Amino acid sequence: MTRVHNFSAGPAVLPESVLLEVQKELVDWRGAGLSVMEMSHRSKEYQSIIDDAMDTLKRIIGCGDDFDVLFLGGGASLQFLMLPLNFCPADKVANYIDTGAWSTKALKEAAISGKQMHIAASSKDKEFTYIPKSYQLSENPAYLHITTNNTIRGTEYMKIPEVPADVPLVADMSSNFLSRPYDFSKFSLIYAGAQKNVGPAGVTIVLIRKDYQEKLLGNIPTMLNYKTHLDKGSMFNTPPTFPIYVVGKVLHWIEDFGGLKEMEKHNIEKASYLYDVFDNTSFYKGTVVPEDRSLMNIPFRLPTEELEAKFIAEAKANRMNNLKGHRSVGGCRASLYNSLPIESAKALNSFMKEFEKKNS
Amino acid sequence: MTRVHNFSAGPAVLPESVLLEVQKELVDWRGAGLSVMEMSHRSKEYQSIIDDAMDTLKRIIGCGDDFDVLFLGGGASLQFLMLPLNFCPADKVANYIDTGAWSTKALKEAAISGKQMHIAASSKDKEFTYIPKSYQLSENPAYLHITTNNTIRGTEYMKIPEVPADVPLVADMSSNFLSRPYDFSKFSLIYAGAQKNVGPAGVTIVLIRKDYQEKLLGNIPTMLNYKTHLDKGSMFNTPPTFPIYVVGKVLHWIEDFGGLKEMEKHNIEKASYLYDVFDNTSFYKGTVVPEDRSLMNIPFRLPTEELEAKFIAEAKANRMNNLKGHRSVGGCRASLYNSLPIESAKALNSFMKEFEKKNS
Repeated sequence: MTRVHNFSAGPAVLPESVLLEVQKELVDWRGAGLSVMEMSHRSKEYQSIIDDAMDTLKRIIGCGDDFDVLFLGGGASLQFLMLPLNFCPADKVANYIDTGAWSTKALKEAAISGKQMHIAASSKDKEFTYIPKSYQLSENPAYLHITTNNTIRGTEYMKIPEVPADVPLVADMSSNFLSRPYDFSKFSLIYAGAQKNVGPAGVTIVLIRKDYQEKLLGNIPTMLNYKTHLDKGSMFNTPPTFPIYVVGKVLHWIEDFGGLKEMEKHNIEKASYLYDVFDNTSFYKGTVVPEDRSLMNIPFRLPTEELEAKFIAEAKANRMNNLKGHRSVGGCRASLYNSLPIESAKALNSFMKEFEKKNS
Repeated sequence: MTRVHNFSAGPAVLPESVLLEVQKELVDWRGAGLSVMEMSHRSKEYQSIIDDAMDTLKRIIGCGDDFDVLFLGGGASLQFLMLPLNFCPADKVANYIDTGAWSTKALKEAAISGKQMHIAASSKDKEFTYIPKSYQLSENPAYLHITTNNTIRGTEYMKIPEVPADVPLVADMSSNFLSRPYDFSKFSLIYAGAQKNVGPAGVTIVLIRKDYQEKLLGNIPTMLNYKTHLDKGSMFNTPPTFPIYVVGKVLHWIEDFGGLKEMEKHNIEKASYLYDVFDNTSFYKGTVVPEDRSLMNIPFRLPTEELEAKFIAEAKANRMNNLKGHRSVGGCRASLYNSLPIESAKALNSFMKEFEKKNS
């Protein structure tokens, strides 16, 4: 079996060792006589799986017991709604930094849910090709929300913005979660869809600081209320049991890799195979300002749309998948999440150089 | 490998043939060089998987194109909220028949979401041990909601209630979905968590009649709005891709089994191995009225709680898992979903007879 080089923006490549383990255990989990998919979520066996996933995550981010971990269904898009419902009271204002399509959806949902909303900064003026370096909070901010990596535009926060001590910082980390050692202690709430860096689609990880939980609001529909899920350890209703099990294995893989510092080195090295190409040719053009270049999602353009289509097709013929840019922006994009092997980045680097020679 | 006899109420047993297929394809789906878990939901390959699952479901229920199929995250519990938000206008009343814990949660959520709610019938007077045979609608009913099978109490609708032509009938079919040939044409909306009869946890199936979609309301948060998901074929955001893939395989298994009529025969036969025991001894007592006995979930009591604990423990030692009743009602319960083999029901029958001999 030859694995493809999978540059998908998500769902995305997973570590081959994790897939092999999942395959081995699929019909009969460790001699239990059943698949993880067939386990009651109330069984001791499954409880050990979800507990282990939560504990491994806490070790990786080094937060001790400062945060509670939730594994929820519905996607990060549902968090766009749950966040303001749970944490923005009527007399306060939900603040957002708008850095692209997903931030925009998040802030729109705060408004749709009837909350006061304020855009504290935006890079819309230059088509979201940079990360704003300053921001202006509203009066009475409930929180400041950032999107730490922008999957479509390919920008990423290298440094987390400073916030006043009384303003909770909240982040959608879906597309760079556990890819670098951010100072997690600065955040009050973090959420991330699993399907980029830490697992298959179908589960969203939410981390809520214990002291921030004191600010949880009431009168919220049951399933949208964080308290519902916190009180029951993500077991109020049946959680997405199998995706959580796979996430647990990816978390062990990250820990065994050496944790977030080693993961960052690995991701810097992979990204360099693309950014070095951009910096040494005018055939491929990166689309964002160099200082905010994402390690995860790297959009680029070729001289013409025809060449872009040819590039994507020839790459695919060479087993390099999913290099098409997001339909809203066009062009090309390579996503280089945690699990993408160095070899895939190297292969793309060689292919790009060769393609340039033949076509310029 | 010896499979356990898995009587879990959900997540529950899956067909062994499905698990073996999933295992075979896990690392490399049909030579594509990647796992289904790693596929972009926007890829042709994944689109073929979700389309096939939707088409197979429509063939099984024989609805032609009268319904649209949604595959959503968040669990059936999220549907308790989405249903009234989308289909109960301010001047109408959401009507419910209350047949146990899950119906009760559904009707409470209608009230929590600020809608007028009316309990059209209830079997609470006798601890939900029967299905009400009549009901009284409110003025201006938006819809009538029933729970076709009650997982905890073990009652099931043998016959769907007649409703006036202008009253939409809506059902939570989570625990008997595709286990018998109901007349699906009588329903306007059906929803079911997959993790009982048709797959692993993490995906909820929602069927909405095309003509009922004309009544969809507006001003609803994005992810709670059925229109969001209908307009994008369940691909507004990343759906739970792998659970949907497994559901697709279980649907093919149901179709290959002979469809819903054959499935019903199979389920009647399995349930008879328990109900015959109840009818021929006073050692085991069923807890519901005989005419409303569920084919799916069969609760029963033994003469004492001590004997119940002993029964559950000895059954487990004999590889019969998950025979403990729901924590809210105690006693014992066997769940006999579609995928449970006849052999498991026979094994339980023999064990019950033997246990009675030794302990009475």
